[in-house]
Amino acid sequence: MKQYIETNKERFFEELFSLLRIPSVSSLEKHKPDMQKCAERLVELLMEAGADEAAVYPTTGHPVVFGQKMVDPSLPTVLVYGHYDVQPVDPIELWHSDPFEPEIRDGAIYARGANDDKGQLFMHIKAFEFMVREGGLKHNVKFILEGEEEIGSPSLAAWAKDHKEMLAADIILVSDTTMISESVPSINCGMRGLSYVEVKVTGPNKDLHSGHYGGAIANPINVLCDMISSLIDKDGHITVKGFYDDVVELSAEDRAKLSRAPFDIEEYKGFLDIKEVKGEAGYSSLERTGIRPCLDVNGIWGGYIGEGAKTVLPSVAHAKISMRLVPNQDSATITKLFTEHFLSIAPDYVKVEVTPHHGGDGFLIPISSPAYKAAEKAMTEVYGIEPVPSRGGGSIPILADLQRILGIDPLLMGFGLERDTIHSPNESYLLKQLFAGMEAIALFYRYY
Amino acid sequence: MKQYIETNKERFFEELFSLLRIPSVSSLEKHKPDMQKCAERLVELLMEAGADEAAVYPTTGHPVVFGQKMVDPSLPTVLVYGHYDVQPVDPIELWHSDPFEPEIRDGAIYARGANDDKGQLFMHIKAFEFMVREGGLKHNVKFILEGEEEIGSPSLAAWAKDHKEMLAADIILVSDTTMISESVPSINCGMRGLSYVEVKVTGPNKDLHSGHYGGAIANPINVLCDMISSLIDKDGHITVKGFYDDVVELSAEDRAKLSRAPFDIEEYKGFLDIKEVKGEAGYSSLERTGIRPCLDVNGIWGGYIGEGAKTVLPSVAHAKISMRLVPNQDSATITKLFTEHFLSIAPDYVKVEVTPHHGGDGFLIPISSPAYKAAEKAMTEVYGIEPVPSRGGGSIPILADLQRILGIDPLLMGFGLERDTIHSPNESYLLKQLFAGMEAIALFYRYY
Repeated sequence: MKQYIETNKERFFEELFSLLRIPSVSSLEKHKPDMQKCAERLVELLMEAGADEAAVYPTTGHPVVFGQKMVDPSLPTVLVYGHYDVQPVDPIELWHSDPFEPEIRDGAIYARGANDDKGQLFMHIKAFEFMVREGGLKHNVKFILEGEEEIGSPSLAAWAKDHKEMLAADIILVSDTTMISESVPSINCGMRGLSYVEVKVTGPNKDLHSGHYGGAIANPINVLCDMISSLIDKDGHITVKGFYDDVVELSAEDRAKLSRAPFDIEEYKGFLDIKEVKGEAGYSSLERTGIRPCLDVNGIWGGYIGEGAKTVLPSVAHAKISMRLVPNQDSATITKLFTEHFLSIAPDYVKVEVTPHHGGDGFLIPISSPAYKAAEKAMTEVYGIEPVPSRGGGSIPILADLQRILGIDPLLMGFGLERDTIHSPNESYLLKQLFAGMEAIALFYRYY
Repeated sequence: MKQYIETNKERFFEELFSLLRIPSVSSLEKHKPDMQKCAERLVELLMEAGADEAAVYPTTGHPVVFGQKMVDPSLPTVLVYGHYDVQPVDPIELWHSDPFEPEIRDGAIYARGANDDKGQLFMHIKAFEFMVREGGLKHNVKFILEGEEEIGSPSLAAWAKDHKEMLAADIILVSDTTMISESVPSINCGMRGLSYVEVKVTGPNKDLHSGHYGGAIANPINVLCDMISSLIDKDGHITVKGFYDDVVELSAEDRAKLSRAPFDIEEYKGFLDIKEVKGEAGYSSLERTGIRPCLDVNGIWGGYIGEGAKTVLPSVAHAKISMRLVPNQDSATITKLFTEHFLSIAPDYVKVEVTPHHGGDGFLIPISSPAYKAAEKAMTEVYGIEPVPSRGGGSIPILADLQRILGIDPLLMGFGLERDTIHSPNESYLLKQLFAGMEAIALFYRYY
């Protein structure tokens, strides 16, 4: 594969950049035409790479791309999952180059989606192309590329249920996660689930002059702060009633195994420029993101947020709040528990509304499976050291759904790095990782 | 004056509308030319009304308008204070008509500044015009109209110090406040001071993926909520160290006098559509805005605040926080105490910055003064009942400064009503109040 990459590098860039230039932001209505455009471009790339067939499939939301090459029905089948939608680009002013005009700087591609997930899914298309062209493909390969991962995949589960036959496979192969570090390859064997809600606190029925009313009535921003503040206690425990009921405590042995992953707290703090970390008492930083649930405010707004000062006592305050869940916690149950709890702590002097956004369950993958073993061998060959099994803090809720619907396990070979700052300004993807990923995936086909 | 209003009504509307059409928002840089334009228009109106002289004076900020008519140096001099700047118009989508294209609907003028303070200062220009034209003016009249009241009058105090001679007078007459209700005229005999700051909490040095980091590091929004929540205890007391040190407790007698002001709590809650009021334990609603200080968040923002969901753990969170102060609390001292307190409660895992916006001290006016008596008589004649002395919750910090610099008391004859929703969308001013104000001011000149 190394030689093939060298020969075709320029064409690869052109093809990947053609995807990155399409602003396929799934959460914004105005980008709807871009979703279709991006899906169609993926069909072209799949066909050019050697698929027998590929097409754009409408769903109740953004379209799904499905393509496949059936070598022989008796051979094992790999179902590659990826997503072509991306996160919004705000705050746009912090980008050093246009998020939708990819640039190569210092050995990395800078663009929204450079890593998450256009860059990573592109590795699969090129590894597949290599296997087809070199005549070495001994598997059937299917691609399912969705356009709604960043908004919680509201349509794919239903679509998958209707296309179970078509999606039948032995393993779901995914590159949408990170490795522990540039020098420590890892394979994700578990991901957290997600419950994401939006809350609205209404005080008076109009914005008021803070001088005339301040002190005499409840200010919805202050109340929202009180309510949010009460959601996590001083030990870092979430106070939502029943929140931990289904959380499985890991054995001392399992915790010891996970703690083998190299982690340098000083480097971590240095990378983030923070003096201290913070989290649930009694757990390490890796455990806090790997095996424990958490609650974060992802956005908050209310009152006057422009330049200068305005003495307003606002009518409403809003927040977007998400909870990361661990295996066995049910996303719908947690959303329900949160909603009940948040309404129950609402004081009489405000009105509170909770609207669920999206969610999904976490999952675990057996590290003894043949697919895990093949991935381990492939990555060892590429990186020269054995990859560490890790637990991802993020959520790809749809994978738990696909696992349940199709009855097959997902395998997460992710090549992202912390430095890529996905979801943030200046998202990037190291060329080194892009090419190492292609190699490792091609080797996975050899060893699986 | 009634007859004069009837005859000149249409011209009055044209003149006032010409002021309201100028978007003189002092806090927004882009409106700088409008400030000059509005000041020049006021000079024209003052000259047309009968001033001997009027001119626009530059300051270190937005210009000041000064005009006067000297009838006889031996007569008492009235200094009319007003401001021609207005608040921003956000949220613009809630306005039913263009904020800078005044409309008369249901007996009221709708526009930004219709009441605060273009409408109210206009009453003074027209009452003055009437007195001049009818030949009844037995006072010298000076006008000082500033363009920075809504941003805390940063330039006027220094300008006034440089022009003490020019501003010399016996009373400062101001219409920039409200009456208790349409049927209960009142005269403000005290106003609260203000300390207004902006705070910024920084966590990690970049926006992060909330899945990868959530639970392991401090989220600056959550931390900001914790910090804000801790600023007020469960009894409604502000926890800033030393905050109440200079607050003078009112005597039982004084509190009894203030409580004579009619106040219907059910009507109040109904007007605001709230189930319960909230405030400092041990004080009535009127006391909470009249004689007690308070703390309000005027704006908060951080993370993703667009449509849909984004799983971001943001780098920064911001809030605008203001405190209303009562007489004897020094604004600069309180800003300092707040800053020290807020920095002292900042946990190790975030960086916190506090930036002062503007502030000012509160003040009290003796109700036994000849000016108060004249205003009382004038309002009794116009409304048919004696006005109630009240304490305003809002702040006109510059008045405390002018009182100190010029050595003269301000008298606040305000004709606004709660229904005018100043600082909010759909600010309006009842024609009835506009005309009653002109009459009362003209009568004030007769009785003073």
